[in-house]
Amino acid sequence: MTPHQEIKVTFQPSGRHVHVLPGTRILEAAARAGIMLRNPCGGTGVCGKCRVRIERGKCPPTAACSTVFGAAELALGWRLACQCAAEGEAVVDVPAESLFESAAQILITDSGAKVHGTPALHKVYLELTPPDLAHPLADLERVAAAVGVAEMPLAQLALLPDQLRAGGFRGTAVVCAGQLLDWEAGDTSGDAYAVAFDLGTTTLVGTLINTADGSERGVAATMNPQISVGDDVISRIAAARESRHNTLRMQESVVQAFNGLIEQLCREAKVPRERVYEVSVAGNTTMQHLFCAINPAALGEIPFVPAYRSARRVAARDVGLQIHPAGRLFVFPNIGGFVGGDTVAGVLANGVQLSTETLLFVDIGTNGEIVLMHKGHLRAASCAAGPAFEGARIAAGMRAAEGAVDKVVFDGTDLVCNVIGGRRMAGICGTALIDAAAVLLDLGVLDPTGRLLSAEEVPASVPTAVRQRLHPDGNDIKVMLGAAAESRSGEPVYLLQRDLRELQLASGAIRAAITLLLRQAGLEPQDLDAVLLAGGFGNFIRRENACRMGLLPAVPVQRIRFVGNASSMGAKAVLLAHELRAEADRVAQVTEHVDLSLDPEFQMEFAMAMMFPEGA
Amino acid sequence: MTPHQEIKVTFQPSGRHVHVLPGTRILEAAARAGIMLRNPCGGTGVCGKCRVRIERGKCPPTAACSTVFGAAELALGWRLACQCAAEGEAVVDVPAESLFESAAQILITDSGAKVHGTPALHKVYLELTPPDLAHPLADLERVAAAVGVAEMPLAQLALLPDQLRAGGFRGTAVVCAGQLLDWEAGDTSGDAYAVAFDLGTTTLVGTLINTADGSERGVAATMNPQISVGDDVISRIAAARESRHNTLRMQESVVQAFNGLIEQLCREAKVPRERVYEVSVAGNTTMQHLFCAINPAALGEIPFVPAYRSARRVAARDVGLQIHPAGRLFVFPNIGGFVGGDTVAGVLANGVQLSTETLLFVDIGTNGEIVLMHKGHLRAASCAAGPAFEGARIAAGMRAAEGAVDKVVFDGTDLVCNVIGGRRMAGICGTALIDAAAVLLDLGVLDPTGRLLSAEEVPASVPTAVRQRLHPDGNDIKVMLGAAAESRSGEPVYLLQRDLRELQLASGAIRAAITLLLRQAGLEPQDLDAVLLAGGFGNFIRRENACRMGLLPAVPVQRIRFVGNASSMGAKAVLLAHELRAEADRVAQVTEHVDLSLDPEFQMEFAMAMMFPEGA
Repeated sequence: MTPHQEIKVTFQPSGRHVHVLPGTRILEAAARAGIMLRNPCGGTGVCGKCRVRIERGKCPPTAACSTVFGAAELALGWRLACQCAAEGEAVVDVPAESLFESAAQILITDSGAKVHGTPALHKVYLELTPPDLAHPLADLERVAAAVGVAEMPLAQLALLPDQLRAGGFRGTAVVCAGQLLDWEAGDTSGDAYAVAFDLGTTTLVGTLINTADGSERGVAATMNPQISVGDDVISRIAAARESRHNTLRMQESVVQAFNGLIEQLCREAKVPRERVYEVSVAGNTTMQHLFCAINPAALGEIPFVPAYRSARRVAARDVGLQIHPAGRLFVFPNIGGFVGGDTVAGVLANGVQLSTETLLFVDIGTNGEIVLMHKGHLRAASCAAGPAFEGARIAAGMRAAEGAVDKVVFDGTDLVCNVIGGRRMAGICGTALIDAAAVLLDLGVLDPTGRLLSAEEVPASVPTAVRQRLHPDGNDIKVMLGAAAESRSGEPVYLLQRDLRELQLASGAIRAAITLLLRQAGLEPQDLDAVLLAGGFGNFIRRENACRMGLLPAVPVQRIRFVGNASSMGAKAVLLAHELRAEADRVAQVTEHVDLSLDPEFQMEFAMAMMFPEGA
Repeated sequence: MTPHQEIKVTFQPSGRHVHVLPGTRILEAAARAGIMLRNPCGGTGVCGKCRVRIERGKCPPTAACSTVFGAAELALGWRLACQCAAEGEAVVDVPAESLFESAAQILITDSGAKVHGTPALHKVYLELTPPDLAHPLADLERVAAAVGVAEMPLAQLALLPDQLRAGGFRGTAVVCAGQLLDWEAGDTSGDAYAVAFDLGTTTLVGTLINTADGSERGVAATMNPQISVGDDVISRIAAARESRHNTLRMQESVVQAFNGLIEQLCREAKVPRERVYEVSVAGNTTMQHLFCAINPAALGEIPFVPAYRSARRVAARDVGLQIHPAGRLFVFPNIGGFVGGDTVAGVLANGVQLSTETLLFVDIGTNGEIVLMHKGHLRAASCAAGPAFEGARIAAGMRAAEGAVDKVVFDGTDLVCNVIGGRRMAGICGTALIDAAAVLLDLGVLDPTGRLLSAEEVPASVPTAVRQRLHPDGNDIKVMLGAAAESRSGEPVYLLQRDLRELQLASGAIRAAITLLLRQAGLEPQDLDAVLLAGGFGNFIRRENACRMGLLPAVPVQRIRFVGNASSMGAKAVLLAHELRAEADRVAQVTEHVDLSLDPEFQMEFAMAMMFPEGA
């Protein structure tokens, strides 16, 4: 088995599996399978929170494992996921306490502290004493006395007297965020569903949660249908500026997509749609505006002012969501015009706002959002990274789907590409771009200005196999990643010079933003206790390579932590812990919004950040 | 001019006029014209709050006037309205400070204390600093910082960014009950309209108010269209019990009638309908339930439990009211199944809940509601008086409209009937029934059991003219009030024996309820400091006669105060003083609801109360 042949790692009890290169740490493999393990120490093997048990397969313990586990435990297969790597196909048992989220509690700070929150939605089965002459209390007040909530939408109150009497005053009160939403026959207290939405410019992700036990009942994703209007927020804003009709059309299309996801989630989990009582939505400021049918035009003009900052707490039907007729909707607060609810959600999900460490939170997407926490002060900035990381504007670019090259390594003699699904090559996704840049930089094939050298120009140390991949392309050079025979289309797959320019732009924007935020706080990269890397994409980046090619600041790689889809996690968190809603508003209010586009230093910093770092 | 020929009294500055008998006190004449004057002393001439100026006409001062006014003032025409009577046609100037309500403040306690309330609805013209790079605050937060309210319905928030920019950040914020309802171009702060509704079983009365200055801009009334289902609440409840469809139909019909009244009020006052931002509604428990589309079936069954007690604060569009799209609705709280929001409104409007006096509040309608305030404790009861006071179930009965006999007096030789409008007689209304009973009792034509005596049986003192009105009617006697020649139909108008039986039932129910409430508090009628007589009907009763025939307890007549349409006044009060809304909830909560229908003493008391009191 060559080092670049993937092995299958299966996680129990979920049964999810993933194909990774041998030597991939279990923590990373789990993350790729969508299983976030606790790693408050940043994967340094110190805290022992990421313990897993190797059920089958070879996975030797490290020294750190031996300090945490006794010989008997080691013999049973207990390992630290952050330290150990599977050397072949493996089955890994993940105990619930090692999960980033466990059922009824949310691990909220990255230092391991827990917030024991209460869901905004909860149901209570009640056997009320029917009214009699001595106690002729009104129906609503009778239920309210039992659940402590006296507000009820009129349409539901209208049905309450009949419902109470039909069930002999026995039934389930549905309570959500200070309102009594309904009275249901029998005991339905175990079915308290809510959906958390990550409202991305490109992708919509919905997670069905049962707030009764905190369990996740399904995840579904679809493209943001607004993509037909344009790839990025600027194009959506431009369309909205044209006419109110466009705004309404974009609003309806997203709501329709959400309704489709809700329908799918409910069908797959066998949950009646009317048993979904709440929805939370986290997206960037523009996406959230459009979702609420608010014209985002002002977000496209100096001084980039949003219509609202504080969270929206409204009836779900007000935007057209098809859940329980009295269902509620929570839309995250915005920090500013380009730092929105998704960032607030990510901050909350990782307890950044509570940290005493100096933390950098980086969410890489079409827009990059960066939050710096230092000595209790939160600063946030955004930058337009563009869609390069998502494969757009790259000649052979594609999303991280089957057929995409998602990883490029140098095995000592040649470049080795991993193709998702293991079949023929269809294109390149963002992580492979970063890998390729880092590998080519190390080899000296790519110079710090971002120029690809020809086979003749490269250092003598570059092996022949690599040299043979460097083909002329007009005045430029292109790198053949896959030959015609390996390719799905029958044409070779190339990495072009201009692809690397796109990467430089995307990476430079994010790096410049990080540099400026650090500078404003008087910090250097090495002052960072941790870098939290969020976003579906960030989660697949190889940290060494991201540092090597300059996307991330030069910090010891173990300080870089993957935190998954933090926006989605924050959207789930506010469903499970209503206390975090006020906290979200507080974060949005106290975070200093740094508008980099207006910083005279930004252009200079951007230009400099586009240069790849010199090798070590 | 004979004593029973009416004179015209005109009130300035409103220009309203009324026809009354000479000798009618100005206070009473004003009340009949819908102008409520302050009379905290109960019309005893002590407090001097009801001062008016006689512009034209003969109205001699009394001794009480001379103690309050100097000679110069008396010469200018200043009089106490509670003491003086016009002897002929008169024009009376009413200063604002003598009005029961004056513009921005509501006289809330009958002891003269004022509550300086703030309207729930108010508008603020703002010239905001447009956002710039240094102050990129979100639009909503920018307005919120100026008005102190941060909640805004999503549909209005969606339009806010465009509205703010279209007007250069100058415009009017519309604030109602803690919500920002809209942003309007220009300065519209003077147009802050709201409508107060008295939702009666029989009649709907709407009052258009400009909360910007507290002015009343119009009053309009119509029949409750639910009358087609039945006269009283019991018939409405029965219909609702039949089907949900019936409940919804009754709901829609009342909302449609309200919308018609709003349309009419707006048209007459030249106010755009979208400038009406709030509606308050006070009605009995059943009417309020139907208005909210709540099945009132439980109100028709022991233990007569309402669906809700506390006030409803919802969007006006939730019930279908056509005002501003974000307009609000306040529905009064209920005390119990048969003591509803109209009673709470009446209590509030008269500050009964704050009084240190022992007060009896009596609202006479199809249902009689009675509230006793004694030593800080509120007790309330209701009784089914039936529609006799409104002219129903009376052979020649009719409402107090043109052609109705509204007053019966004995002028020493004969009965004299006053006919509304002064033309031919069409029938008899409730006040005349009470007058007739009192006069006939005094003459000895009616005995305490309620039996009419024949011309042969009556005492010798009864003049011939009266005797000639007593005609046989089978085994009974009937009283001819108008001969064929005086009657509109050409047939004589009679008061029948069974009409008096109906009156005994109606009066007896109310009197029995009063007696029981007093007894529960350990009180006798003479312990009452005041009896507040509410309701459109109560306002026209002649107090002496009401006491004489036993409807009201035997208290000195000056302790009986007319308080007008107290339900309507309470509905207006909560629009002008939002502070009274929490007070309304408090009153509904602390008032002890006494269910007389279940009191074993009630039937006995009712039977006794049906007997007319012996003469003095």
